[in-house]
Amino acid sequence: MQSDLFDADHELFGESVRGFVTKNVVPNLEKWDADRLIDRETWRAAGAQGILGLAAPAEYGGPGETDYRFRVVIQSEIARVGASALQSGFSTNDDIVLNYLLRHADDEQKRRWVPGFVTGETIGAIAMSEPGAGSDLRAVTTTARRSGDDWVINGSKTFITSGILADLVIVFAKTDTEAGSRGFSLFVVEDGMPGFTRGRKLDKVGLHAQDTAELSFDDVRVPMENLLGEEGAGFAYLMQSLPLERLGIGIAAQMSAEAVLGWTLDYVKERTAFGKRIGEFQGLGFTLADLQTSVEVSRAYLDRCVREHNKGTLTAVDAAKAKLWATELQGRVVDAGVQLHGGYGYMMEYPVAKAYIDSRIQRIYGGTNEIMKEIIHRDLIKK
Amino acid sequence: MQSDLFDADHELFGESVRGFVTKNVVPNLEKWDADRLIDRETWRAAGAQGILGLAAPAEYGGPGETDYRFRVVIQSEIARVGASALQSGFSTNDDIVLNYLLRHADDEQKRRWVPGFVTGETIGAIAMSEPGAGSDLRAVTTTARRSGDDWVINGSKTFITSGILADLVIVFAKTDTEAGSRGFSLFVVEDGMPGFTRGRKLDKVGLHAQDTAELSFDDVRVPMENLLGEEGAGFAYLMQSLPLERLGIGIAAQMSAEAVLGWTLDYVKERTAFGKRIGEFQGLGFTLADLQTSVEVSRAYLDRCVREHNKGTLTAVDAAKAKLWATELQGRVVDAGVQLHGGYGYMMEYPVAKAYIDSRIQRIYGGTNEIMKEIIHRDLIKK
Amino acid sequence: MQSDLFDADHELFGESVRGFVTKNVVPNLEKWDADRLIDRETWRAAGAQGILGLAAPAEYGGPGETDYRFRVVIQSEIARVGASALQSGFSTNDDIVLNYLLRHADDEQKRRWVPGFVTGETIGAIAMSEPGAGSDLRAVTTTARRSGDDWVINGSKTFITSGILADLVIVFAKTDTEAGSRGFSLFVVEDGMPGFTRGRKLDKVGLHAQDTAELSFDDVRVPMENLLGEEGAGFAYLMQSLPLERLGIGIAAQMSAEAVLGWTLDYVKERTAFGKRIGEFQGLGFTLADLQTSVEVSRAYLDRCVREHNKGTLTAVDAAKAKLWATELQGRVVDAGVQLHGGYGYMMEYPVAKAYIDSRIQRIYGGTNEIMKEIIHRDLIKK
Amino acid sequence: MQSDLFDADHELFGESVRGFVTKNVVPNLEKWDADRLIDRETWRAAGAQGILGLAAPAEYGGPGETDYRFRVVIQSEIARVGASALQSGFSTNDDIVLNYLLRHADDEQKRRWVPGFVTGETIGAIAMSEPGAGSDLRAVTTTARRSGDDWVINGSKTFITSGILADLVIVFAKTDTEAGSRGFSLFVVEDGMPGFTRGRKLDKVGLHAQDTAELSFDDVRVPMENLLGEEGAGFAYLMQSLPLERLGIGIAAQMSAEAVLGWTLDYVKERTAFGKRIGEFQGLGFTLADLQTSVEVSRAYLDRCVREHNKGTLTAVDAAKAKLWATELQGRVVDAGVQLHGGYGYMMEYPVAKAYIDSRIQRIYGGTNEIMKEIIHRDLIKK
Repeated sequence: MQSDLFDADHELFGESVRGFVTKNVVPNLEKWDADRLIDRETWRAAGAQGILGLAAPAEYGGPGETDYRFRVVIQSEIARVGASALQSGFSTNDDIVLNYLLRHADDEQKRRWVPGFVTGETIGAIAMSEPGAGSDLRAVTTTARRSGDDWVINGSKTFITSGILADLVIVFAKTDTEAGSRGFSLFVVEDGMPGFTRGRKLDKVGLHAQDTAELSFDDVRVPMENLLGEEGAGFAYLMQSLPLERLGIGIAAQMSAEAVLGWTLDYVKERTAFGKRIGEFQGLGFTLADLQTSVEVSRAYLDRCVREHNKGTLTAVDAAKAKLWATELQGRVVDAGVQLHGGYGYMMEYPVAKAYIDSRIQRIYGGTNEIMKEIIHRDLIKK
Repeated sequence: MQSDLFDADHELFGESVRGFVTKNVVPNLEKWDADRLIDRETWRAAGAQGILGLAAPAEYGGPGETDYRFRVVIQSEIARVGASALQSGFSTNDDIVLNYLLRHADDEQKRRWVPGFVTGETIGAIAMSEPGAGSDLRAVTTTARRSGDDWVINGSKTFITSGILADLVIVFAKTDTEAGSRGFSLFVVEDGMPGFTRGRKLDKVGLHAQDTAELSFDDVRVPMENLLGEEGAGFAYLMQSLPLERLGIGIAAQMSAEAVLGWTLDYVKERTAFGKRIGEFQGLGFTLADLQTSVEVSRAYLDRCVREHNKGTLTAVDAAKAKLWATELQGRVVDAGVQLHGGYGYMMEYPVAKAYIDSRIQRIYGGTNEIMKEIIHRDLIKK
Repeated sequence: MQSDLFDADHELFGESVRGFVTKNVVPNLEKWDADRLIDRETWRAAGAQGILGLAAPAEYGGPGETDYRFRVVIQSEIARVGASALQSGFSTNDDIVLNYLLRHADDEQKRRWVPGFVTGETIGAIAMSEPGAGSDLRAVTTTARRSGDDWVINGSKTFITSGILADLVIVFAKTDTEAGSRGFSLFVVEDGMPGFTRGRKLDKVGLHAQDTAELSFDDVRVPMENLLGEEGAGFAYLMQSLPLERLGIGIAAQMSAEAVLGWTLDYVKERTAFGKRIGEFQGLGFTLADLQTSVEVSRAYLDRCVREHNKGTLTAVDAAKAKLWATELQGRVVDAGVQLHGGYGYMMEYPVAKAYIDSRIQRIYGGTNEIMKEIIHRDLIKK
Repeated sequence: MQSDLFDADHELFGESVRGFVTKNVVPNLEKWDADRLIDRETWRAAGAQGILGLAAPAEYGGPGETDYRFRVVIQSEIARVGASALQSGFSTNDDIVLNYLLRHADDEQKRRWVPGFVTGETIGAIAMSEPGAGSDLRAVTTTARRSGDDWVINGSKTFITSGILADLVIVFAKTDTEAGSRGFSLFVVEDGMPGFTRGRKLDKVGLHAQDTAELSFDDVRVPMENLLGEEGAGFAYLMQSLPLERLGIGIAAQMSAEAVLGWTLDYVKERTAFGKRIGEFQGLGFTLADLQTSVEVSRAYLDRCVREHNKGTLTAVDAAKAKLWATELQGRVVDAGVQLHGGYGYMMEYPVAKAYIDSRIQRIYGGTNEIMKEIIHRDLIKK
């Protein structure tokens, strides 16, 4: 069953995105992986094509498009060519960093920072995780203390998507050691600030074109104007923005699963063995039937989540379900897709191989799936 | 996430169904299981309450309600009290037998037969499976041959839901041994016709209140007026009505899964061990989180299927997916529900125990789930 | 791969057990289920055949056979005919109650009680679980307090295998409310003691021939001579005997899984559909291959456990693994076996249907599989 | 439960292997991955240490050690440091190529070729798969035709382990197009033979240090003395040697699973979050318990297979079960191991990350696991 999420407008937008993908993404995929970096040119081209900063209001140069289905269109088209690293960079910009800015920045800050998210001039990052604090954000040890009109940040962060290229980093730091979860605030650290350095680019299983990195903050002086929202509200802000972040990951997972299943179906309908197309073998066929059904069922749920998000009624718990479900699905589909490609599934020239190494992080970042389960668990038990 | 399938009308109807369930179903559940039969009184009460024969047009005494969501309401309320045998009886009447009559009977036949489906006076059955032919209906050996103005039916059928009580049985029989799948026709055999006998009530794992039976046809003379639709079109008719039958099973499975999970959550939030409510243990909690997510995701798909059915666009393949998915879900939820009840899950006084024995047939009848997979498989490969 | 556990002696013993099974078990299976009781005649016949009380030393009338492989032989032969209720009764006698007596009874007590376990005159039971205390035995509220030379027991127990017939019940009761896990002791309550009454026979999902029951103790005076082992050592004794109890359940599960797979293979090699034996369809074949492999792999582990038990080196944790693994396997094999039988899998005349309802308790009793996981978990983490 | 496969001799040998691993493997792992090649020095060091060519008889310079448990020791020690590429190279040499030579080479051939397998001077490869023929070897199109006293080979092979370095390649080629499965023969192609070229090194998901490659044969003249065994017996030879090849893969998978679980347990016992060691969380603990049990159960079966192999009684079907089971286990353990490492599981500096990319091929090569299932399926059905 086809998704019924999109209207004619989305289809039209899809064509435009497809144009960008065909021209700017496909020819560069291998290069980006080799370079371990996506060039800024691509970001600017995306901006020019109108596929960045969708939610930015007109006054900050954006289209003010808050219908999340347009983001789904983008995710779908990028997934179709397996450009996972680009996916995660764009999502970090649009679903996370821009979202923080639009929700918590004041007018002046928005004027400074938002336009670059529309043009693709600005690459954003969010710095939460630390070597000793992943899912447990209360354990974060990076601090920001007042010093005159500035804040001084010290600490180090890791697993930062777009860490090497980021022009603007939202840093989650402890501002009051006595205040529990009200003791954290968000700061915008900008490229070039003294004391702010990028560590090594992390050597990952996949997502090679993603410049995930460690970041160091050594007495970084950040002016008051770079405090995002209220002092002490950082933890609450994180909680508020997690639903969209997780929905975004869920959507990326769903789109990737659909793409991988498509490639796999193409393969098994073409490859022959023992005198027939291998897809005709019932043993493989039962697996294919299960995958196809799973993908369609999952899509119905994700579509529902997108609609709820559009209405402003997607809860944190339901976003956790979407992230959990879709990334588990993706894991299962990708693994089966590799298997059904036989030896070729292990060869990097096949997109399913790239999906195998790229996708493994999905069940981990944005909160591990175990954290998702615990969130859902607590919700079930409290009621 | 709550389903958004229902409107106010359905909620209202739900109250009415709940009234029937509370008054006529709950007090009788044990008796029905002991009697291995649901009394006709219940059917008539259901008819009086307006919950039978929904799709029957006004001219045949019915409400002409073709919005399948009202059927979903009924299934949901019945599932909530675990009345699986009643569920399967009502579904056979409304989703299968009545559906055949409305699609293929001529006006005169409709006048004779349809009103009883609205009042609950008529219990219908469909006789397809034979001892030697289950999923493979082309292997059916029951025959109907012309003899003057009559047809003479010979053969035996098995696994017939409502077999003992049925007043009206649609029999699938071979009318032309040379014509392949065009050699089958449907006949309405009525209670009391000479040569039509009920075999023993089958001793099943569960669904004890269901009078599933074997039926024998020994030179049963059926007048021409009891041929349903066109001679030779029987197989095609079966194919046409399978989507609704399978959607019905899928919906029943979904509703049962939701009910079982509800009972289980109630149990784990009440039962204590090692000093806390057992639902608080994370080891169980992860399972609960998985079940809850699975149930909601599945519901989104089933709701979508209901909407497509209402629009007339639910394909046979998508109905197969719904049946496959929802019954597998049900199996998983029921099994886990038993486990989470500990020893009490094995005690028949707990509804989860009854669900365990009742539900096992769902992955088998209406076409085994292996047949569903093969249907989906062929569809994937042909494209 | 065939198990290599047995020697010629075991094969020979197997023939003898087979004789008993053919003559005394198979003809009575239906009757027992209908009666909800296995007659004492069967127990005496088993005693006469030398298949009860194996571990009882010669001085108490037994063969003193401590090679557990002979018990495996018995389990295997009983499983082959699906006599699960007999299985659980025999296991309770030999693996649990007799084991307690041999380990903890004094000489005088052994002389009084052990011989009946060899002849089949005595049916034993163990009364641990209570309505409010299942896996969490420290929560047991049945008490025994000193009164002159007697102990007076008050409380109620539930889920007691052989509860209705038991001549001798080992009761786990609290003797010191201050002493924590050293505050429990074991008492032998005998049939006819005033105040000892049987509650209703429990209505279970399956194991219908098993007279599982509730027991009540209302000021039951038990003479000092019926205290088993040391006062206050009850909890420790339970811990010591759990490995054999759990190994016994694991073996029963394994043997049942092997039997069910055998019936299923017979069925799929005989039943035809769409022009071939259904076992030839690759979609089913992949499932069969998985089940067969699983069963053989599991058997290798269980065989290993039996050998360790014989050497006295089977740890409690490894017994928990055996119970967990084999009962999960059994659940999976039985469920798939039903499915592969199609509609017949739901008909009680097929042994696979009986296995479906009988086996569900295996993942629950003897400590739920969740408790097994927690035992294994703690062991992994402590190291 | 610890494996009881090894005697004191094996433990002693293990120490020796550990020495080699510590000195020659661990310091080079990163370099090999970067070079996409393992240097010949390592092979010679292994030869000097006595861990290559175990089965080679004394007359050809080897220890004549046919107790496969010594090979298991080697696999275990190599797996412990995650040196999968070395693993697959050594297995190809010892379990496959040397095995072919010892079984089918004549005396003269053995004298020429076997000694190098003991010293590590000779790296062997087996060339079966072709771009258009993977599991279906009858579809192989590489041909060898007689030309005077020589054979002339034409064709191309792919997925050849040790393809770049191999000094000696056993090539499976069609020698008679009319003779069906008797139309294939084996030839030893040696480095430097005109027309024999190596294609590109394949870019794989993992096993980067493995020089898997494509090979081309363009009118390669092979003297009669390089025909291995009888003309036309190639296919039969393959069938005969598959059990050992598959057992070898199964053992490698088992050893890897054990190692990965070990690293994971270490990690979860050290890493803290939310105030405790993460391994203490029951939600993770249930997973750990399941993995540990699975690994031990599987080991019992693999150990049994090794013993059967030593006795010469391991069937092709049982070897297929071992390969299927252990590689599925490995896949499951590795995937869960990554997950339990959280973000670090995706970082290549953690061995579990390397295991993730290296291990994915195991369910594919040596015959895909789907082929294993079909082999087992056919065996079950024929009986």
